Amino acid sequence: MTTFEHLMEVCLKRAIIYPDSEPHGAIAGFYDYGSVGSEIKRRFENEWRNYFLNVNDNYHEIETCSIMPEKVFKASGHLDHFFDPIAECGKCHTKSRADHLLEDVLGEKFEGLDADRLNELIKEHNLVCPKCKSQFKDIENFIMMFPVTIGAGDSTSLGYLRPETAQGPYSAFKREFRANRQRLPLGLGIVGRAYRNEISPRQATIRQREFTQAELQIFFDPEEEPEVPFDKVADKLVRLWPQGAKKVKEVTAKEAMKVTGMSEFFVYHLALVQDFFRRIGLYEHVRAYEVPEAERAFYNKYQWDHEIFMPSMDKWLEVMGFHYRTDYDLKSHSKATGEKMNVPGKGYVPHVLELSFGVDRCVLALLDTSYKKDDKREWFALNPLVAPWDVGVYPLVNKDKLPQRAREIQQLLKLEGLKVFYDSGGSIGRRYARADEIGVTYGVTIDFDTLEDDTVTVRFRDSTEQKRVKISDLPSVLK
Amino acid sequence: MTTFEHLMEVCLKRAIIYPDSEPHGAIAGFYDYGSVGSEIKRRFENEWRNYFLNVNDNYHEIETCSIMPEKVFKASGHLDHFFDPIAECGKCHTKSRADHLLEDVLGEKFEGLDADRLNELIKEHNLVCPKCKSQFKDIENFIMMFPVTIGAGDSTSLGYLRPETAQGPYSAFKREFRANRQRLPLGLGIVGRAYRNEISPRQATIRQREFTQAELQIFFDPEEEPEVPFDKVADKLVRLWPQGAKKVKEVTAKEAMKVTGMSEFFVYHLALVQDFFRRIGLYEHVRAYEVPEAERAFYNKYQWDHEIFMPSMDKWLEVMGFHYRTDYDLKSHSKATGEKMNVPGKGYVPHVLELSFGVDRCVLALLDTSYKKDDKREWFALNPLVAPWDVGVYPLVNKDKLPQRAREIQQLLKLEGLKVFYDSGGSIGRRYARADEIGVTYGVTIDFDTLEDDTVTVRFRDSTEQKRVKISDLPSVLK
Repeated sequence: MTTFEHLMEVCLKRAIIYPDSEPHGAIAGFYDYGSVGSEIKRRFENEWRNYFLNVNDNYHEIETCSIMPEKVFKASGHLDHFFDPIAECGKCHTKSRADHLLEDVLGEKFEGLDADRLNELIKEHNLVCPKCKSQFKDIENFIMMFPVTIGAGDSTSLGYLRPETAQGPYSAFKREFRANRQRLPLGLGIVGRAYRNEISPRQATIRQREFTQAELQIFFDPEEEPEVPFDKVADKLVRLWPQGAKKVKEVTAKEAMKVTGMSEFFVYHLALVQDFFRRIGLYEHVRAYEVPEAERAFYNKYQWDHEIFMPSMDKWLEVMGFHYRTDYDLKSHSKATGEKMNVPGKGYVPHVLELSFGVDRCVLALLDTSYKKDDKREWFALNPLVAPWDVGVYPLVNKDKLPQRAREIQQLLKLEGLKVFYDSGGSIGRRYARADEIGVTYGVTIDFDTLEDDTVTVRFRDSTEQKRVKISDLPSVLK
Repeated sequence: MTTFEHLMEVCLKRAIIYPDSEPHGAIAGFYDYGSVGSEIKRRFENEWRNYFLNVNDNYHEIETCSIMPEKVFKASGHLDHFFDPIAECGKCHTKSRADHLLEDVLGEKFEGLDADRLNELIKEHNLVCPKCKSQFKDIENFIMMFPVTIGAGDSTSLGYLRPETAQGPYSAFKREFRANRQRLPLGLGIVGRAYRNEISPRQATIRQREFTQAELQIFFDPEEEPEVPFDKVADKLVRLWPQGAKKVKEVTAKEAMKVTGMSEFFVYHLALVQDFFRRIGLYEHVRAYEVPEAERAFYNKYQWDHEIFMPSMDKWLEVMGFHYRTDYDLKSHSKATGEKMNVPGKGYVPHVLELSFGVDRCVLALLDTSYKKDDKREWFALNPLVAPWDVGVYPLVNKDKLPQRAREIQQLLKLEGLKVFYDSGGSIGRRYARADEIGVTYGVTIDFDTLEDDTVTVRFRDSTEQKRVKISDLPSVLK
């Protein structure tokens, strides 16, 4: 357990996460991943790809542009609906998000309410400006997308930085559907940046203006729901907080069909989401909150927000959305463009199930839930799949052929597909401590005995347990 | 050999590259990578990481923001110098890049000249508007960065979408230098998006408004140039076109020291660049053009543009820049921010060697140089490291346990770390043809004999040669 402030200090010091353009005066809501953080983030992203793009042969990754034409966001509804409700202080003109003001004071969620309702609530609860205690003006809607003017002079086009990756797959659907021989289900995933002009960016990478999403859009025929190998997940546990329930229920995927009222196709994918969290060490911290109809976008028939309990903040953080978006997206784009996007031979377009992960929040959840501290040291007990490196290789001293032997062992482990770094700086204890602080899974120390008998000391990060191992056994011990 | 138009048709049809937001009317200069293209691009990027970030233990990847504050670009010189010279027709107001107009007509390079000189050249050669044949107005400078307004109302900041990834590492230098214990050389690499408001985007992904770079900034002490394991590259061949030479010289890295007049540190990295191209099958198409002083940015002491000959365009395309940027970057950022960025104990800042790869152009070069066609078929003879998939697995027919056995073999090969897809659609010949058209390296066909004797047919893309192989030998044959 730690405070969020301390967690961020560790992140800063260890080049995990730091403010962007720091020497020039960072702008709120922009963060970089440093030489350690980007390794963790990349591993998370690659695990995501390995997991979700292997679910079905027809689930693919694509890479679309982050600047998209205005027409896309007219069709998607963003231009008409993607606003933040801004409460401006009548006296000091400080701007805040109205729903956040209410949430901070009342401890409930107020996202998705319209300006009129928020005005009522602010008056009802006598909320005043947190800075100068004056009354707020009426709430105004502020568009959350960044506009970008493309071209010069008379021949300019208006675009926007995408506020989510999802519009890429919808726009690319027709071409991919054809190239992939009109098979359904078709999954189109993107791991990429998205941008929102947040009025009040918050808490480091939790609410940023530039952030990374990993989203999978699954297009399917709602009248012939795709068969799924449900057996593979039937006995896996999931953690659900359904509407009306007093607390989280842990049930098998099979039982979840009754609890959620959803069919195999949906429950299968919900179970995969939680199994993915299990794989990277987050399952025991997760819950899927069933969002009530009043809080859902009108087109979302099912919505389960996956939240992770963040020890340093003592609260739940939304990291993933499971959205059954029905025919809203393709219907909208089809209507706006006149392009037919129908299920072959049918009078309707494919429906969409969206699995939407906030990569930055997932990475932060990995760090927060794995942070440990005792009298002697602090470390990240990261799951090996998302640790920045698998192994640190350390020559005990920098002489007598130890560095040379250590380099050979580093090379050997690299060839085995392990992520390895070499560190010869400072005492061995200091090197272990440095590796612990960034969550490296194993340490391998080369000493004088190594030169004699081809054994090394393997140290495990979490237990600090040390074990003498033959070099020839190293790959199997470390894997 | 093919035309560029045909190459792009294949890319469109096979979901390799297509215009972004197509159904909404794509804006020029924005392209997507489809379900096949993104596999090739990602493999290129991962090979780049594997290669360059393993050169030195202190070369790291970081991930910085694509929107950066105005101050960064004031310090870097972009705000004052990053212009396109625009020639506007006096009659029909068509806008063109003046240097491109000259290049198209005269067949030489004119990049980097100032507006006055370009005006002179246009008059000297009587260039007129390509559309209406009227005279041009005087050339105007047009800033090539996209501005982004961040925040709302009174409290906005101005930022720009980065026109190159390089400013991220310069801004992050101080923090990374400290976190990595002030060791030099320090390499900071980014694989990420960059943005330029090009007036005349050209030829698909060659000149885009949104594109991907893979750039490595290497910071070093110029007075104590880092030692490098030069022996490892001494005998490797490089292809150079030095100033004053009449044609490309192919020499060893050792000989290149004399030819280039550069020290081991620089020639080592130049040889690595070409060795990387060798690794992915592009070396025989590459040349390094030594940019003359008059065409270089004033801070570039050495500049070798790596170009690849594009058969479909019958011309050389710049894909990579090798830039010795001296102390320009850190000195500029240090001066603008007041932050000291010195080499420890020295009165100067580290110098920078930049290895800058245009990812989209490299991917296009991979496709163009590997495209083959004969009477019977067309295919991409891609190097296996950058092929979209290693293996296609095909059950001969969709019955009698063949699909089930094929799935088992797909799983087996996946566990061996190979990239495998499964295809059961259409005749086996059609499946081979489809795989060839996207450059899949091998095909493995499961037939009735497989069920009897555990053998399969392996087909190699380039020769179409087929070979009967035991399943237990498959991994070693395919690797």
